[in-house]
Amino acid sequence: MQLTSYTDYSLRALLYLGGHRDRLVTVTEISEHYGVSRNHMVKVIHNLGANGYVQTVRGKSGGVRLAKEPQDIKISDVVLLTEPHMEIQECFSREKNTCPLIDDCNLMGVFYKARQGFMSVLDAYTLADMLKPKPDNKTNPIPS
Amino acid sequence: MQLTSYTDYSLRALLYLGGHRDRLVTVTEISEHYGVSRNHMVKVIHNLGANGYVQTVRGKSGGVRLAKEPQDIKISDVVLLTEPHMEIQECFSREKNTCPLIDDCNLMGVFYKARQGFMSVLDAYTLADMLKPKPDNKTNPIPS
Repeated sequence: MQLTSYTDYSLRALLYLGGHRDRLVTVTEISEHYGVSRNHMVKVIHNLGANGYVQTVRGKSGGVRLAKEPQDIKISDVVLLTEPHMEIQECFSREKNTCPLIDDCNLMGVFYKARQGFMSVLDAYTLADMLKPKPDNKTNPIPS
Repeated sequence: MQLTSYTDYSLRALLYLGGHRDRLVTVTEISEHYGVSRNHMVKVIHNLGANGYVQTVRGKSGGVRLAKEPQDIKISDVVLLTEPHMEIQECFSREKNTCPLIDDCNLMGVFYKARQGFMSVLDAYTLADMLKPKPDNKTNPIPS
């Protein structure tokens, strides 16, 4: 159970733009900062632009900037926009389902609740929360 | 964000075994019931056996059965056993991480909480809950 790199890079691009709001940023700068493919980042920025998260200014001194205030960008909305499969199990999609138990099994309902549990945490956070300095960056929740 | 078919088939195998506790079941029977590859199901059953969830009886009239009571099989434990990547984002693994923001970014903490939100729902359910008849199988949580 893992988010795609497309979602990961979308969130990273927004974080970078949120951290450089005083100027236009180029796609090359973002991709070099993270050491990821420029082509991949072009697609990410295009999608964020098409969905109103970033604005692109064309021309020689052009670049990209956030199109919304960081506090108006919900992490859950970005994940829903960029993640291609939020069907935790095959049976979440009646079209794709092959399992004969679909009408009698309780698993789908439980995984549906679990997905709600996941998304309701993300619902409570915006890009602005992500940009706040950590109170203590040694207290990482994941053991190294 | 999707569970692997390996997890899906592991849960299906347990459901099938839980529904046929009066006799031994063959791997062929399980794979044919779900219309999935027998080879894939052999690996699933082997792993469930190695981890104490199922018992295999060898011989001509052999087969597989649950090695635990359904109420002692937690859905969250099965998912943790079978899902290869519970790192929601690349930065969940310090070894694999390439993102330079790892020490300053709040995203990992938020996704960590979200994963806890997901798993805490699964923690509350066992295979026995999955085997109970649905009160009304028309009240499917996902619109068809």
